[in-house]
Amino acid sequence: MAGKIIVIGGGPGGYIAALRGAALGGKVTLIEKENLGGTCLNWGCIPSKIMKNSADLFLKCLKADQFGIKIEGNISPDMRALMERKEKILDGQRKGISSLLQSRGIVVESGFATIKSKDLVQVTAQDGQTKELAYDRLIIAVGTKPMDVPDFPFDHEKILSSDDILVLDRIPTSMTIVGGGVIGCEFAFIFSALGCDVTIVEAMSRLLPLPSVDESCSKLLLREMKKRKIKVMCDTIVTKAATREEGVGISLAMSPFTDNPRPKKLKTDQIRSEIMTVCIGRTPLSEGLGLENIKLATQGPGWIPVNEQMETCVENVYAIGDILGPNKIMLAHVASHEGLVAAENAMRSKTDPKSTMGYEVVPGAIFTMPEIGTVGLSEKEAKAKGVEVETASVNFRVLGKAQAIDEIAGEAKMIIEKKSGRVLGVHLIGPHATDLIAEATLAMEKGLTAKQIAHTIHAHPTLAEIMGEVASKASGMPLHG
Amino acid sequence: MAGKIIVIGGGPGGYIAALRGAALGGKVTLIEKENLGGTCLNWGCIPSKIMKNSADLFLKCLKADQFGIKIEGNISPDMRALMERKEKILDGQRKGISSLLQSRGIVVESGFATIKSKDLVQVTAQDGQTKELAYDRLIIAVGTKPMDVPDFPFDHEKILSSDDILVLDRIPTSMTIVGGGVIGCEFAFIFSALGCDVTIVEAMSRLLPLPSVDESCSKLLLREMKKRKIKVMCDTIVTKAATREEGVGISLAMSPFTDNPRPKKLKTDQIRSEIMTVCIGRTPLSEGLGLENIKLATQGPGWIPVNEQMETCVENVYAIGDILGPNKIMLAHVASHEGLVAAENAMRSKTDPKSTMGYEVVPGAIFTMPEIGTVGLSEKEAKAKGVEVETASVNFRVLGKAQAIDEIAGEAKMIIEKKSGRVLGVHLIGPHATDLIAEATLAMEKGLTAKQIAHTIHAHPTLAEIMGEVASKASGMPLHG
Repeated sequence: MAGKIIVIGGGPGGYIAALRGAALGGKVTLIEKENLGGTCLNWGCIPSKIMKNSADLFLKCLKADQFGIKIEGNISPDMRALMERKEKILDGQRKGISSLLQSRGIVVESGFATIKSKDLVQVTAQDGQTKELAYDRLIIAVGTKPMDVPDFPFDHEKILSSDDILVLDRIPTSMTIVGGGVIGCEFAFIFSALGCDVTIVEAMSRLLPLPSVDESCSKLLLREMKKRKIKVMCDTIVTKAATREEGVGISLAMSPFTDNPRPKKLKTDQIRSEIMTVCIGRTPLSEGLGLENIKLATQGPGWIPVNEQMETCVENVYAIGDILGPNKIMLAHVASHEGLVAAENAMRSKTDPKSTMGYEVVPGAIFTMPEIGTVGLSEKEAKAKGVEVETASVNFRVLGKAQAIDEIAGEAKMIIEKKSGRVLGVHLIGPHATDLIAEATLAMEKGLTAKQIAHTIHAHPTLAEIMGEVASKASGMPLHG
Repeated sequence: MAGKIIVIGGGPGGYIAALRGAALGGKVTLIEKENLGGTCLNWGCIPSKIMKNSADLFLKCLKADQFGIKIEGNISPDMRALMERKEKILDGQRKGISSLLQSRGIVVESGFATIKSKDLVQVTAQDGQTKELAYDRLIIAVGTKPMDVPDFPFDHEKILSSDDILVLDRIPTSMTIVGGGVIGCEFAFIFSALGCDVTIVEAMSRLLPLPSVDESCSKLLLREMKKRKIKVMCDTIVTKAATREEGVGISLAMSPFTDNPRPKKLKTDQIRSEIMTVCIGRTPLSEGLGLENIKLATQGPGWIPVNEQMETCVENVYAIGDILGPNKIMLAHVASHEGLVAAENAMRSKTDPKSTMGYEVVPGAIFTMPEIGTVGLSEKEAKAKGVEVETASVNFRVLGKAQAIDEIAGEAKMIIEKKSGRVLGVHLIGPHATDLIAEATLAMEKGLTAKQIAHTIHAHPTLAEIMGEVASKASGMPLHG
């Protein structure tokens, strides 16, 4: 009987694993060293969306007169009020998770967990007191922290991590963001909207240089950044940063990592800004966890390898979430699903089939302006697999609803297998793209064709019509696009 | 060879039929008496969404300080600027449809169409000039106009139709809306937001008394109306309206039509407001169309009966859209799909299978505050069919994204068949509900179960997570809700 489950880490993967474990009859203890909700709630998805919400509203207020709203006085961002709202929401959400866990009979231990043996974990509380807890099954969900670069380490004043930027109590006049990935691009739009002069330095040839993001999205995003006067330097790396009273002097060089066969020459090898924010990746938090005590070997800087049942090489020990590293997909909703799989396998009887995690149909949501939602293969990935594909693209501006809400920038691209018409990937950049990708995700999960989506009625006037438009076009019968 | 198609009416059904007819090789002429885009673009979906967009923004500006946006001066709606923006967008959209039709080789004739015979239509232009056009196939898509009530006819000054309300150049101090259906409820929120004191008079026992809208949505909507101080009088009818200089005196009576077995007694039989808007239904525009010349009999006030291939009882004559009346579903996106079906059948060779219109899986989108999206059966409808059902409901407030954007009011309800787990209906009231219903629609179109939706990964932090939450709960494994 797999009665006692210990989950280390209270992020979305960890607490969802705890909930599912308890629902299946387990006696579950969750150990969290800091705050429930993990990076996602405390230092990631949620606080950045609260900031984006205010940035969106600020931009709308600035052009309110166009919509028939007359604002007579001055309009300005108030970072203290924004931060107060943010803290209030995070606090509410943390309490929500806490009561949810409590209501389902899960014990939450506050402290740092160290695995002592194959059936014992030690918890060290903030005051140094320790206790030992026995387990039958262990689920490791300790996550990551922002990656520090020795050449320009965080000083948390002028050289910031993504954690630091979430607690800024003012808008800097200028900011250089190192890394044009998801976090870098999201912050670029937020701070630019709030009045900061933003520059992005990206080592690869394009913004969002992730295999899962189609190049069409990167291209359109670059255009939108230009409209907002965000400067983008691709094929470029930061080699050094000198902090001074008034800001940071940043040394640049051509990127040795770029995938661009003909990278542009640098126009300058020195830029300056008040703040530099480094968003180039995350580092595993497996140090001090006592993995050596159960002979659980890590990879690279400390990632934990697992199979698709979330099993590590040590019996009865599972790992989920960002600690699995970039070989899996480091996203909150992936962690949650891995949590469900781990808990189901931890609680299964020997005759039950194992639960398995699938990584083929995972939606991505990027909160730039406009938003990006992706699922499945990019055109490049599909072609690299040797599949004969067809693609269709439709602009959001053909939709009446996009016109009504004045969010017309963006497009939907669908990649289908030519032979079967089956949808291989959908890449949306535009209003509500992060919500709209859900329909595409379900379609791909069930192996549907573009024609099947086209034959499904989409309500008018909604932004979801973009899926009907692009599916109609992909199946050879375009409507407006 | 079905070469020549004439489409009468340039609304969404008509122009989509024209496009599909042309794509299939037809020589298509579209006759429109007024403006391309029909009720939807000119007097319905789009202008009301433009107004709602401004109303939403106005409400947000009023509480901008909570979001860290400091507005120093006065904030007020400016209806002239709003109307200017509206006209500009409508004009752009009309031109867009016009160029689209032109680019696909469709001839647009401006004028009133009269069917002369089984192969001839006469077009009378505004200047009285007439011409005759021959057809092989005819598609009738003439639509409707707002219903006038003899007891309190529109005077277009104090007693308004939904058309009149879309061109108001000021916010009245008070407005009584007769009819708590879709249009009435949408306008109630818009005008209330803009500062008008709104009262709704509804003959049935609840707001949105449509079979397809689950009672849970009506109940939550009523709560939201109360929060905004919109007065709602159900089980009540207007019997008379006396217009005076300063407004309208409105006589009320208990409704003889209500489905409420114990309707509340009237508190008062007289109310007054500056404006009364009547939104109780629509009337067919089949008069003068010359249907008698082809012996096409109408039903009731002039609705045209068709089968599911959109064929009327007259060979080669099809009808689509709102002119089919309330026996079908009077929505723009239904009209468009009927247009595709009619055009495909008009252009098919004798050996092709017929295209058929399905009405089981039609999403509904209602732009109240919060929005409503529905598809499939309500709980009541499902039970009336004798199906053994299970239901699950989850509040939007459990979603981090709803918290981040401060739109936490609302819930999702899913109705499944107990035996199979198959989704029978989804009723969403909450932020982006009109977009989120697309995923539920695809699920129902493909006959999926709640468990299949629950197993599909939903991106975090998005509002689309509500579908994962409610599907998980419906399949017996709740997450947060």
